[in-house]
Amino acid sequence: MKRLTVLGATGSVGRRALELVATFPDEFKVQGLAARGSNVEVVADLCRRHRPTAVALLESAAVDALARLLPAPRPELLSGPEGLVALTSRVDADVVLSALVGAAGLLPTMAAIQAGRTVALANKEVLVMAGALMTAAVRARKVALLPVDSEHSAILQCLLGHNRSEVRRIFLTASGGPFRQYAVEQLAHVTAADALKHPTWKMGAKITVDSATLMNKGLEIIEARWLFDLAPEQIDVLVHPQSIVHSMVEYLDGSVIAQLGVTDMAIPILYALTYPARRPCPVPSLDLARVGQLTFSEPDTRKFPCLTLARRALSQGGAASVVLNAANEVAVAAFLEDRIRFTQISELIAEALERELAREPGSIEECVAIDGETRRFVREQLLGQPASAGSGRSG
Amino acid sequence: MKRLTVLGATGSVGRRALELVATFPDEFKVQGLAARGSNVEVVADLCRRHRPTAVALLESAAVDALARLLPAPRPELLSGPEGLVALTSRVDADVVLSALVGAAGLLPTMAAIQAGRTVALANKEVLVMAGALMTAAVRARKVALLPVDSEHSAILQCLLGHNRSEVRRIFLTASGGPFRQYAVEQLAHVTAADALKHPTWKMGAKITVDSATLMNKGLEIIEARWLFDLAPEQIDVLVHPQSIVHSMVEYLDGSVIAQLGVTDMAIPILYALTYPARRPCPVPSLDLARVGQLTFSEPDTRKFPCLTLARRALSQGGAASVVLNAANEVAVAAFLEDRIRFTQISELIAEALERELAREPGSIEECVAIDGETRRFVREQLLGQPASAGSGRSG
Repeated sequence: MKRLTVLGATGSVGRRALELVATFPDEFKVQGLAARGSNVEVVADLCRRHRPTAVALLESAAVDALARLLPAPRPELLSGPEGLVALTSRVDADVVLSALVGAAGLLPTMAAIQAGRTVALANKEVLVMAGALMTAAVRARKVALLPVDSEHSAILQCLLGHNRSEVRRIFLTASGGPFRQYAVEQLAHVTAADALKHPTWKMGAKITVDSATLMNKGLEIIEARWLFDLAPEQIDVLVHPQSIVHSMVEYLDGSVIAQLGVTDMAIPILYALTYPARRPCPVPSLDLARVGQLTFSEPDTRKFPCLTLARRALSQGGAASVVLNAANEVAVAAFLEDRIRFTQISELIAEALERELAREPGSIEECVAIDGETRRFVREQLLGQPASAGSGRSG
Repeated sequence: MKRLTVLGATGSVGRRALELVATFPDEFKVQGLAARGSNVEVVADLCRRHRPTAVALLESAAVDALARLLPAPRPELLSGPEGLVALTSRVDADVVLSALVGAAGLLPTMAAIQAGRTVALANKEVLVMAGALMTAAVRARKVALLPVDSEHSAILQCLLGHNRSEVRRIFLTASGGPFRQYAVEQLAHVTAADALKHPTWKMGAKITVDSATLMNKGLEIIEARWLFDLAPEQIDVLVHPQSIVHSMVEYLDGSVIAQLGVTDMAIPILYALTYPARRPCPVPSLDLARVGQLTFSEPDTRKFPCLTLARRALSQGGAASVVLNAANEVAVAAFLEDRIRFTQISELIAEALERELAREPGSIEECVAIDGETRRFVREQLLGQPASAGSGRSG
């Protein structure tokens, strides 16, 4: 029986994970749940279904509302960032699924590693922000850090059983997003609604916009660098609109191992939770004859400068990756609120990266400080923008 | 230093293997060479280059000619089927590359297993003829039997590091051969020259015709059944004209692991020889962006009945597989000599399979006897054919 804590229980990955573990009642016990707190009804419902021993909400004000929805005996209720850290530190769990969106997951994920728990990581931003510190902690505590992202789950599976010293490079595949075939001039006029129409994957709003800018792939390059201890130049990106080949590893003899599957996050989520074993996943088999064709092309970095920005941040070092991530989070939120154009996302990130950078962060606290400072800077830049710069709004 | 014996040294795989090992002089020493003997100049040249301690030729008459070409001190010269068996039994080698074409490889390959040597198997017919006996000997002698076929090398690589009990099925990919897009009516009129134009792989004549009939894939299904201990219904075939995905394994969670590469036999040949390590292979990297697209479809068994015949033989048991293989060898030879039409290959095999079958062969000798008896039967059928049944001859 694996005891499980889910950070980000009401998000896309968290909800899917809880649905999946419910189908294996003899194998999983949900111990802890954490969420932002913007949807306490859903949290209450998850508590009734999974009977966790503790629940933490990031928004402290939401805890009272949750308490009113839950009859006694209630799970222990925790609140605020320190509540999430307490949850992952104190509540006994074998595996912590880290599936909060963005920087909010950093401290509780680090706490889970420090507590010696296996971490199933869906929140790539925490590795982007603190990859060096986090992987050092993983090594020191000898815990397993398992990717949930379909691309990194693929890389993990393509490395199993092979000699790590024989890896030549890896290929992360990218759907190319909804604007893959747009002309560069069209990109200034796309709306948040357009960006949220992902061609192959159903995901949360932030990651869907990141897929449209290709920043998601940029963040994944940084994530892969830390997860698999690769040099940046060993990490290539291939545009693959069907999203069937989830990623690939090329070995030094020219042999390439790939992992394929239907575009359903259930497979990588379940694999991270059952690793190293596999369990039957409630998804259809991949039918390649029906898919018919798989296509591949180089990414167009002129059209999608975020990919280049991410590579630049990775080569500049840890502080630059924190800046990249923070600037991106603020810019994407502004785009989703229709306050800036799509093309301004990369412009704002580039401006943030051009500033004098702090020295290499030596602690999680320093990462958080650089993150906060960058957010303030980008928000200041946004104040200089007209209230709604978006054109061609769709609603 | 791995000591190597090559059976079929003048064939397509043997020559390529010898070229490859020559580029790693510190890692390989060629100890023994065997060939049919139809090209003694090439054998003499290989002897001068690789300085084996012994050479065996299947055609006894060719040995004197070889002796005249080689100045003293000569390697030990052996001849006939027993000479090949003596070579693999007596000459010290860590690895025997079994790359003779067809049934001729059966006895020396079995002798290599009995002598406890690792066998790199390019000759799938020996597993088709004697899979049960050969895999029993492999287990008893605890030797490694490593596939050289690109498809089975792919399966081996896709199984490494994963749990065998979690395999749902495998997919062998097939180029579909040169007649993939022909109408069924056109197939009666294709010539040997047409059949020898393989779209993606450069190989010997027999296997190239087998690729055109899809019998090659049928034989590979039987080979896979024995190499990987799979149930016949776990082995699927997918037509994939680009031959970039060499084969795939589907696991019970729906995850599919595939091995890809350029269409150059150097990769699987070298891997079988260096296994479990890899060495840089003198082939270009796979450039999927340049390949552009990979396509997949179901095989058309109405157009290519050999696939169905192979499955039928596999379900009927060991004797039927011997019959399938023997009938196919004789029929393909007759087609290459322009004595029968392309479509008669499968007809002759079907006739041979419809006869009362001998009981399950209990020894290699019984396999050889069924093989001989089937060849006689098919040759008799051929005597009833007009001298040249081929129409539309191209030369």
